[in-house]
Amino acid sequence: RYFQFCKLPGRIMGIRLLRFTSVVIIVLLLVAGALTALLPTIKDDKMPILKRESKPQSQSALDSFTLIMQTYNRTDLLLKLLNHYQAIPHLHKVIVVWNNIGEKTPEEMWTSLGPHPVPVVFKVQTVNRMRNRLQNFPELETKAVLMMDDDTLVSAHDLAFAFSVWQQFPEHIVGFVPRKHISTPSGVYSYGSFELQNPGFGNGDQYSMVLIGAAFFHSGYLEDFQRQPEAVYALIDETQNCDDIAMNFLVAKHTGKSSGVFVKPVDIRNLEKDTNSGYSGMWHRAEHLLQRSYCVNKLVNIYDGMPLKYSNIMISQFGFPNYANHKTKM
Amino acid sequence: RYFQFCKLPGRIMGIRLLRFTSVVIIVLLLVAGALTALLPTIKDDKMPILKRESKPQSQSALDSFTLIMQTYNRTDLLLKLLNHYQAIPHLHKVIVVWNNIGEKTPEEMWTSLGPHPVPVVFKVQTVNRMRNRLQNFPELETKAVLMMDDDTLVSAHDLAFAFSVWQQFPEHIVGFVPRKHISTPSGVYSYGSFELQNPGFGNGDQYSMVLIGAAFFHSGYLEDFQRQPEAVYALIDETQNCDDIAMNFLVAKHTGKSSGVFVKPVDIRNLEKDTNSGYSGMWHRAEHLLQRSYCVNKLVNIYDGMPLKYSNIMISQFGFPNYANHKTKM
Repeated sequence: RYFQFCKLPGRIMGIRLLRFTSVVIIVLLLVAGALTALLPTIKDDKMPILKRESKPQSQSALDSFTLIMQTYNRTDLLLKLLNHYQAIPHLHKVIVVWNNIGEKTPEEMWTSLGPHPVPVVFKVQTVNRMRNRLQNFPELETKAVLMMDDDTLVSAHDLAFAFSVWQQFPEHIVGFVPRKHISTPSGVYSYGSFELQNPGFGNGDQYSMVLIGAAFFHSGYLEDFQRQPEAVYALIDETQNCDDIAMNFLVAKHTGKSSGVFVKPVDIRNLEKDTNSGYSGMWHRAEHLLQRSYCVNKLVNIYDGMPLKYSNIMISQFGFPNYANHKTKM
Repeated sequence: RYFQFCKLPGRIMGIRLLRFTSVVIIVLLLVAGALTALLPTIKDDKMPILKRESKPQSQSALDSFTLIMQTYNRTDLLLKLLNHYQAIPHLHKVIVVWNNIGEKTPEEMWTSLGPHPVPVVFKVQTVNRMRNRLQNFPELETKAVLMMDDDTLVSAHDLAFAFSVWQQFPEHIVGFVPRKHISTPSGVYSYGSFELQNPGFGNGDQYSMVLIGAAFFHSGYLEDFQRQPEAVYALIDETQNCDDIAMNFLVAKHTGKSSGVFVKPVDIRNLEKDTNSGYSGMWHRAEHLLQRSYCVNKLVNIYDGMPLKYSNIMISQFGFPNYANHKTKM
């Protein structure tokens, strides 16, 4: 009898226990919620970096870079450049994008003349496309990409310094060739270089793009490039041009800042005249510049706005090449 | 009887309740702890900025700067400089730190020759101290401080560009005069300029300080300076020197990065020879440089470490002063 009786307080305690538990759980949820709200929101301009982090990376992959070089019809130059770039500090790997469709790569010869300090991977393509070099290559293990045209030579010293600059501006395109857009009264944009000036823009000059034919940028941007509107790919394939302008749009949209940081090169050379193929680059075509202005305006339509921002910052190395290059000669 | 008897299960439940509660509380603390650990730690290099935000600021106070100029025994130069700086774009106010103890300021004459576009405030000091200029002046309403020595003239154009650079690097000292420390094998540090070289540091040069005698920095750092160890103030007063070195230590500790960003000046001049007082600056004293090395080592002891970091970045304006200064002459 008293057992039944005595169950009562037990039940009461049970209910109290239940109430108490639920109250505590609610408090727990509130605290958790409040604190979670305080967590840092992922900044856009950090995104590519985070993305890369997801791939496991060797230490060397973190403080080194991958050279991506697309080549077409200039194998002699390619080999000359491959030899040059073997001696670059912090170079982790070379990816050669082989756009000579149906032609054999010089891999065999290259290997036979080894050993080489830095591994070279030949990526044979099935179509000769400008944007082949903008794939997210599985062989790419570093955060930093150095993209070079196959007719351009930049000194080891310039590359080492520019890489150290990129490490301080990882969300920007850090390179040696600045370009700009200007908007005309008609609202149509023009593309150009130093010869093109913004009317009434006072002293000095500005740039709004840094070309990826001689630049460092974050490998995360190659992933982002795979997720662009079809119209962007169509534009690049139709013109066989402007992939570098598209990358500047992508980066500017991503960061909300100017896409590029210009590093003044001490020694940059165009080796085109040295090729035996006699092949001269796309940029010699009469329509080249017109196409690029056309692309800027097209991209503004596709992205529904002009993301490019101007910068007038030029970075050089303190005390190099002249010991006192920081002293102003007047 | 059964009451006594029946208290038992109650007590048992009580104990259970107690146990359960304590368990839940522990869980609560653990979760809270875990989530708190995930909270963003206030980045030091943001602190001064946050601090400033607390003061209400006019829009103009946000995109303009305050010139702080300390003067001693060079009133003729002071007036020349005040006239020059009146024409600087984005200048919000001038604060003159009047170290001529017991002397009347030229305020009356200055006002009589008005109107002047930019307000000038004379802060009469009671003791002639180097660090008077590092007070957190109530008249200071802008985030950006331009600090200038009273014998140095920097062109309006250099100042406008450097200010735009500071706006992109607000946690750094952005200025025109780089200096460095080097550590000797004995572990003792030396202070110097380009003549001083790190043994075996390869190509180019480095700096680890940017002097505040011709530089922009965040006004929050003036607040931080008020909270330094007494030994720092004693060192500065004893030497009447090194306040600028101390500021570089403060900023480097604050950011964990190099304290300064060096902007290559196009036109910077020392006007000392132009003064009628014949007074020549402290830095002419034989012991000046020795004192500064002494200060570096003292500050390392006071702060229990060497916070200064090296940089080799030199910033110039793209396309200025020469239209194509980005083109490498070879």
